[in-house]
Amino acid sequence: MVLEKIKQPNDIKNLTEEEVLALPAEIRSFLIEHLSKTGGHLASNLGTVELTIALHMLLDFPKDKLVWDVGHQAYTHKILTGRANEFDHLRQYDGISGFPKRVESPCDSFDTGHSSTSLSAALGYCMARDLAGDDYKVCAVIGDGALTGGLAYEALNNASRLKKSNFLIVLNDNEMSISKNVGGMSTNLERLRTSSKYVGLKNNVLSSLESWPNGERIIRKIRSTKNGIKSLMVPNMVFEDLGIMYLGPVDGHDIKAMMETFNMAMGINGPVLVHVITKKGNGYEPAERHPSRFHGTDIFEIETGLPMRNPNPGYTDVFSTVMRKMGDRNPEVVAITAAMAEGAGLKRFRNMFPDRFFDVGIAEEHAVTFAAGLALGGRIPVFAVYSSFLQRAYDQILEDVCLQNLHVIFAIDRAGLVGADGSTHQGIFDVSFLTSMPNMTVMAPKNKWELSDMMKFAVAYDGPIAIRYPRGEAYCGLKEHRAEIVLGKSEEIKAGSKVMLFALGSMVKKAEEVEELLKAQGIDAGICNARFAKPLDQAYLDKIKNEYDLIVTLEENVITGGFGQQVQAYLDDNGYNGQVLKIAVPDEFVRHGSVTLLFKELGMDVESITQRILEKLGK
Amino acid sequence: MVLEKIKQPNDIKNLTEEEVLALPAEIRSFLIEHLSKTGGHLASNLGTVELTIALHMLLDFPKDKLVWDVGHQAYTHKILTGRANEFDHLRQYDGISGFPKRVESPCDSFDTGHSSTSLSAALGYCMARDLAGDDYKVCAVIGDGALTGGLAYEALNNASRLKKSNFLIVLNDNEMSISKNVGGMSTNLERLRTSSKYVGLKNNVLSSLESWPNGERIIRKIRSTKNGIKSLMVPNMVFEDLGIMYLGPVDGHDIKAMMETFNMAMGINGPVLVHVITKKGNGYEPAERHPSRFHGTDIFEIETGLPMRNPNPGYTDVFSTVMRKMGDRNPEVVAITAAMAEGAGLKRFRNMFPDRFFDVGIAEEHAVTFAAGLALGGRIPVFAVYSSFLQRAYDQILEDVCLQNLHVIFAIDRAGLVGADGSTHQGIFDVSFLTSMPNMTVMAPKNKWELSDMMKFAVAYDGPIAIRYPRGEAYCGLKEHRAEIVLGKSEEIKAGSKVMLFALGSMVKKAEEVEELLKAQGIDAGICNARFAKPLDQAYLDKIKNEYDLIVTLEENVITGGFGQQVQAYLDDNGYNGQVLKIAVPDEFVRHGSVTLLFKELGMDVESITQRILEKLGK
Repeated sequence: MVLEKIKQPNDIKNLTEEEVLALPAEIRSFLIEHLSKTGGHLASNLGTVELTIALHMLLDFPKDKLVWDVGHQAYTHKILTGRANEFDHLRQYDGISGFPKRVESPCDSFDTGHSSTSLSAALGYCMARDLAGDDYKVCAVIGDGALTGGLAYEALNNASRLKKSNFLIVLNDNEMSISKNVGGMSTNLERLRTSSKYVGLKNNVLSSLESWPNGERIIRKIRSTKNGIKSLMVPNMVFEDLGIMYLGPVDGHDIKAMMETFNMAMGINGPVLVHVITKKGNGYEPAERHPSRFHGTDIFEIETGLPMRNPNPGYTDVFSTVMRKMGDRNPEVVAITAAMAEGAGLKRFRNMFPDRFFDVGIAEEHAVTFAAGLALGGRIPVFAVYSSFLQRAYDQILEDVCLQNLHVIFAIDRAGLVGADGSTHQGIFDVSFLTSMPNMTVMAPKNKWELSDMMKFAVAYDGPIAIRYPRGEAYCGLKEHRAEIVLGKSEEIKAGSKVMLFALGSMVKKAEEVEELLKAQGIDAGICNARFAKPLDQAYLDKIKNEYDLIVTLEENVITGGFGQQVQAYLDDNGYNGQVLKIAVPDEFVRHGSVTLLFKELGMDVESITQRILEKLGK
Repeated sequence: MVLEKIKQPNDIKNLTEEEVLALPAEIRSFLIEHLSKTGGHLASNLGTVELTIALHMLLDFPKDKLVWDVGHQAYTHKILTGRANEFDHLRQYDGISGFPKRVESPCDSFDTGHSSTSLSAALGYCMARDLAGDDYKVCAVIGDGALTGGLAYEALNNASRLKKSNFLIVLNDNEMSISKNVGGMSTNLERLRTSSKYVGLKNNVLSSLESWPNGERIIRKIRSTKNGIKSLMVPNMVFEDLGIMYLGPVDGHDIKAMMETFNMAMGINGPVLVHVITKKGNGYEPAERHPSRFHGTDIFEIETGLPMRNPNPGYTDVFSTVMRKMGDRNPEVVAITAAMAEGAGLKRFRNMFPDRFFDVGIAEEHAVTFAAGLALGGRIPVFAVYSSFLQRAYDQILEDVCLQNLHVIFAIDRAGLVGADGSTHQGIFDVSFLTSMPNMTVMAPKNKWELSDMMKFAVAYDGPIAIRYPRGEAYCGLKEHRAEIVLGKSEEIKAGSKVMLFALGSMVKKAEEVEELLKAQGIDAGICNARFAKPLDQAYLDKIKNEYDLIVTLEENVITGGFGQQVQAYLDDNGYNGQVLKIAVPDEFVRHGSVTLLFKELGMDVESITQRILEKLGK
């Protein structure tokens, strides 16, 4: 095994050429074997094996800075920097992260997780380097999906000005983000990939290069390069009009071709983009056939690629069903996703109502302002999005939707702890930031039927309205509690004595279990399903403030500015003399690991909550 | 006066050609005369007089939808839709807004204020129209500055897919946003504007048009068009590679040329961008010479263009001075602006340290992630930005700066009520959204010396840190109170009895005045300058919770998730038995008008605050 020779960064440079060329197959086997047992981002990582090897042959770690956009394609980088032994615990509590993490290795230059940040961060490194008189290399690897995000364009627009900085941008083009890519830029890249008429345009490229500062030297290099690359050099006006030199496309599974091109690019002053074509899932047939399913996969059987466990239906499935029904019933309903049709549960809606479905690319900001326009034009837009990615559109939600009080529905998936994806993906801020926005309504369902009822309520409502629900299995308890949804009205599940558990969304289930543990201690706690984080059910709070000594708020959101603080403020403002205990995520980022362990760590599991209540009661 | 014939939308279409051509001069006189007395956005509006006239000749209001990006160039649109009489009260309390407002007129299709939203909103209108089977026209007017924002690119990327939608994009290119534009896109446009070699390329354009669906018809039209336009048609690959047809550039002060081009564009299926060249401040010599100064101007003398009143030094000036000094003392300090060098007080820093100054265009998200990269490279980046525009970078602050705990300084200007610019510009959310982010420190100075001290503290600190200060005059009182800044420590100005005024930043001054009014009522209130909204001074709160019956929090921020709620939560959690009164902006958007009137309306002026305290005390 060549892989065993790689113990630490730069070890790859001591391998023979033969050994280097043997690495990809070994790494692929390693990834498939390990991920079949741990789960993880398989397809994207199988696509970047050779690309990572080529970069590691050229870069000097940790001196040089390599920034992975999104970061779900950096497994080979982790292996080549000495972390292969830790893949047994990939994405597990206390194990290594599925994303680059500076705390894990000095070879991880920038923590990523959200899309389209790499060019900006790398540009910052470039400028800092030049100001400090350092001479390290800076390289960003960005997917064609991430290139649909406006942040990447903002960085490209600025990169072009930094003529003195050596800055290598690798465009990792696999024609996919998580779903199939969309948009004008995608079409443009497609043309480059496929059009045979470009392949013959060698002379055009060369003459266009002449206008570059050191174009002649580059041309000499190109002429001395192997034919395989030379004939592939085509001009890409989008980038060159923005002042970025474009080289490519290059076969992203040909290590030598990439090394030659990267070497050439690094000799050029100013920013250079090398367009590399890779295949998601490359080398593992099931992943090649189903790159979306193997984007983030649970454990699977290697021979067949079939999942080893079938999860129970989650909130995403419930949402998917209700969207299909609503689409049928109400032709005004339209759906928007930012490159997450599958993940956010819009696949069926897309198939049934293709004209009313919009995948805008990884462009959450555009998604929201576009939704505002649709609402003004008389449609009822539903933007289905993960909580942590909705953060991208804070300003658009506030200024374009709430300020104009438009009827846009935010279906917020992965709201709460997400587990293995870790800190960048935890959906724990949305209650805080959405409730601080005037005109916004924020709901959270206790179980699967309530998600459905809330979606219907949201469609009939008029104004900005959000429904947040967590990742994972949809709760099927409390079926008999299905009171009509009324704006700002909570639903009391049971009255109690002295202690009231006032729980938001997913925490109602936990409140039930806490109630049972408390009963065992002789405490008869009440349970209320808050339903609305905004507006709060003031009438109900006015009622319980006289009846209970301890009101416990429960939410899967940070404590600061969250549901509990707002309930507490209302109670305190209105003469409540009892105690408030806020169960919420503390003011800290939450790492990766199983949700069960994380809840425990945060003091939010059923036992910890019960203990905290007992302490508050002085028991 | 031709202008007098325009009483309502579409009246312009009843004018003779001669009358239409006489309009621009009349409108310019009208704008200069009125704005000299009220202040407002003069330069941008003088640049769009003819453009607006041309659009009004073609569009049918309110049926057709015209979306103004940013919206500070829509004065002529307001005049032509029957609002000329209301210009005496422009941007004043109860007067018309300086931005498009749907509540003001059905001819205002989308409320704007923040940059780069127009294409997304207009695209939403297009899709809604097509789904509903309507046939109105949709037009967006976007400046070359707004085109540096990633949101605009996200929309362009999506616009190209909507082949069936008639969608006119007018690129209003004046080579400026508020400052001079920057970046690759800007350079690209510059080339189009100036390079004489393009002007002769007529045949190239025509042949590139042939590849478009209805290219031949367009070519026939172009051939039959006046020479003035024809010779100006040049290809722009950036847009065309994104699938957007490009026409132009056209003289933006030639009504007939624009009408012909717009007409042509509206006959084309799919999105068309017409590149119009305008001059900021056109027709008023002082504004032509100083477009930045006349971007948003106070009242001025028409003959000379000189301001009629000179404001006292504001916090921006104080910041500008301290940045210059820190730049001198510490070579690691670098400064970033998103197209606001003048407004945010970085002009002097730019002039003294051009290598350490970065204007990234209207790209707040990039600014923040770029700052993260700079910080990792060992620099100390200061991002100077208006509070309401920082909202754009919520996710980048959280994920790229706070999660990695990087030393980035946010100098947040216009934090609090801004007055005439109104709802989109009020800086009243930053305390809520920043304090909910783990690792973030949030400060606010009571007076001009403290801003300076806090900046020095921030540079010496290590981690994400924000300083917020309001628009307008810097407070010069309390000079003798200049205790050292210590992380999380407040500064007691005076002790009192029973009532403690715990004030954040700008509200310390108000607390002083409230204290005096209370004294007249026989109440001896204490005053404390909180200094930190995060972390809170828990030791001080522990102290005062036993000494005071009423703790009044004061902040220029929304109440939800703000400083007061967090103080209240801490006090309530820690056994405080007294009352808390939170003086903060209620949960609503705040309109335009003088800050004095707005404070009164919100119950936050000195008299209202005093009254609310007396009521709370039962007096």
